[in-house]
Amino acid sequence: MSLPGLPEGALAGVRVIDLTRILSGPFCTMTLADLGADVIKIEPPGRGDPVRAQGTMVEGLSWYFAAFNRNKRSLTLDLRQDAGRAVLAELLAGADVLVENFRPGTLDKMGLSAERLEAINPRLIVCSINGFGSSGPYADRPAFDFIAQAMSGFMSVNGAPDQPPMRTAPPMSDLVAGLYGALGVVSALQARAATGRGQRIETALTNGLISMLAYLSSEFFATGAVPERTGNDHPLVAPYGLFQAADGTVAVAPSNDTFVRRFLEAIELGHLLDDPRYDDNAKRMARRGELKELIDARMAPEPRAHWIEKLNAAGVPCGRVKDLAEVFDDPQVLSQEMVLEIDQGDGRVVRTTGFPIKLADTPCAVHRPVPDLGAHTDDVLAELGYEAEAIAGLRGDGAV
Amino acid sequence: MSLPGLPEGALAGVRVIDLTRILSGPFCTMTLADLGADVIKIEPPGRGDPVRAQGTMVEGLSWYFAAFNRNKRSLTLDLRQDAGRAVLAELLAGADVLVENFRPGTLDKMGLSAERLEAINPRLIVCSINGFGSSGPYADRPAFDFIAQAMSGFMSVNGAPDQPPMRTAPPMSDLVAGLYGALGVVSALQARAATGRGQRIETALTNGLISMLAYLSSEFFATGAVPERTGNDHPLVAPYGLFQAADGTVAVAPSNDTFVRRFLEAIELGHLLDDPRYDDNAKRMARRGELKELIDARMAPEPRAHWIEKLNAAGVPCGRVKDLAEVFDDPQVLSQEMVLEIDQGDGRVVRTTGFPIKLADTPCAVHRPVPDLGAHTDDVLAELGYEAEAIAGLRGDGAV
Repeated sequence: MSLPGLPEGALAGVRVIDLTRILSGPFCTMTLADLGADVIKIEPPGRGDPVRAQGTMVEGLSWYFAAFNRNKRSLTLDLRQDAGRAVLAELLAGADVLVENFRPGTLDKMGLSAERLEAINPRLIVCSINGFGSSGPYADRPAFDFIAQAMSGFMSVNGAPDQPPMRTAPPMSDLVAGLYGALGVVSALQARAATGRGQRIETALTNGLISMLAYLSSEFFATGAVPERTGNDHPLVAPYGLFQAADGTVAVAPSNDTFVRRFLEAIELGHLLDDPRYDDNAKRMARRGELKELIDARMAPEPRAHWIEKLNAAGVPCGRVKDLAEVFDDPQVLSQEMVLEIDQGDGRVVRTTGFPIKLADTPCAVHRPVPDLGAHTDDVLAELGYEAEAIAGLRGDGAV
Repeated sequence: MSLPGLPEGALAGVRVIDLTRILSGPFCTMTLADLGADVIKIEPPGRGDPVRAQGTMVEGLSWYFAAFNRNKRSLTLDLRQDAGRAVLAELLAGADVLVENFRPGTLDKMGLSAERLEAINPRLIVCSINGFGSSGPYADRPAFDFIAQAMSGFMSVNGAPDQPPMRTAPPMSDLVAGLYGALGVVSALQARAATGRGQRIETALTNGLISMLAYLSSEFFATGAVPERTGNDHPLVAPYGLFQAADGTVAVAPSNDTFVRRFLEAIELGHLLDDPRYDDNAKRMARRGELKELIDARMAPEPRAHWIEKLNAAGVPCGRVKDLAEVFDDPQVLSQEMVLEIDQGDGRVVRTTGFPIKLADTPCAVHRPVPDLGAHTDDVLAELGYEAEAIAGLRGDGAV
């Protein structure tokens, strides 16, 4: 579908100036780039986004960096120099969106106050992603995913009941805030079509996770009771969780009485539902441990594959706990194109995860490889009208 | 900003027909409704979305249901009756978006094949949210958040190294898929402005979580090594994690050497960085346990508040693990309006979490309270041109 160098996709024609680095912001702008936006990533000359130097290098490229920066162009700019800031202002004048994930106030210190941005381009949408929000008592605190997980309540509900609160290993607060940022940007584009004006958007690591506490927060609001950690058990339903087969565990999630009956009948324990010790959910919850032992004993002789086939045939949600080697070799995952091979155009091929949004007519696609630092500096400057000599001058001054 | 009954916001004027129930779909459509879309939730007469009967009831209303369905209108329709399906077709003819989270193929069985939907309204954007994707070997399997967490690899990386894989308590796969669905919908609106045509979008519980494995997946791709569970420790950096103060633990996340120095100096252990046992990150990783004991011993005499103030002043990301009672009483969380009180207009007030996307000019807002089942049936039918008698007839037949 896409021609070389010409981004297509749902957001084709949308230009994003990307001042972000590390995680939350780059995930936001990559999501926009995957959807077809032309994202120009601005990086400090010489070193670039610190993530370029993190994670395992493969043929000189950090695949961690690749996982957050495909489909972007890279422009180096020294924003401490007037010449660098002048280029940025020219870019913003012709852009639709600016995304940044500095600490609150940093953009102002760079000379890009709300008033200045408004003067440069009243149609510009400005998206800020930060730790706790740009106002309130914690606005100036340094933030980090682990801290956002701790302070949002997210960690408090995760983990086993007899163990400490447990973080989620993927940096969920960064990713969720980045995703909300992308949704805010595209929604603001929709609003701009009606109003003709851009606006400011903000998402925060903590606020994003708080919005995803789901029934844990609603039950807290309704009852005032602080939720207890229940590990892999469901707080309200039994049986549920990991059960022991001959060659490992099977995750089984019967969410209500109908599914519990299907599950127990499929493993030939349907008679338990006539046993006065197990004939309703409250009793099964009270005897969760005993019930698990009975189920484990029944399932232990046969391998996982046997039970997974049988339970799926009975309509019971179930599956294996897969490690990443199993996930990325899974025929379903591969058929969903959730492993992406990006041809860097120089013999290198990078693997990243695929696109979770499937759009039929304007699909997400690899429009551009992972950019080397400053790979598009000359192109972008030329688009702004800079002649080769002027570009050489900027380069000589270390401004690009 | 908003007038009663008139949705405003970034997505004002966008009409969404919502066939979803339970979790992933309702989260998607609520997010669109929070942004100002007019979401008409279609529910079976009599019982409605099963979540209406789940969670704690407060004055007759499930606050769990409220947490996923504010800002929507509720229309009851029996889609097994021709009359019900006819109303649905009329609604789709005038709508911008249809969202559904049935098992793949269900929409076809309801008579809403791709061809039929195209005939009804070629501008309609159709968003499907399912478990594993609508194609591939697992397409027909029943899905559930716990299973998606297990099969996406997400569970395999969470938890303590000496403990089993650990699910995340909030239903992250539902929420992430719902959020990607919302982003897909708004992106397709943007595409439609250029093409004049709607399109189909799909997101899946597993695919969403796979896309959020972040550096865990990129490191796996780069090295082939399956990541080990590291609990609350950082896989690559030490010191990091939960440390013991006089009245509980403090989460501290110094992400690189600069922050490690700030941390250790702030707790007067800066000399450890001159000790040949701890003078680089590799050594500190190897002696992580010893190092933690030294830090715990240093921090144990003083309360959490002391260290949090001191470490924040030194620029070290840190904070308490807050439980939900503490989160929803936190001055920062309250100042960010992350607790929302929804006035139901009948004396009842519902509490839910607030809006994580802050848009300056078209803010997310409570445009409508949580709908009682079928509360807007008459209004919506009247908008379609149904007279009172015709509505009474539909009601008499149990079609609405």
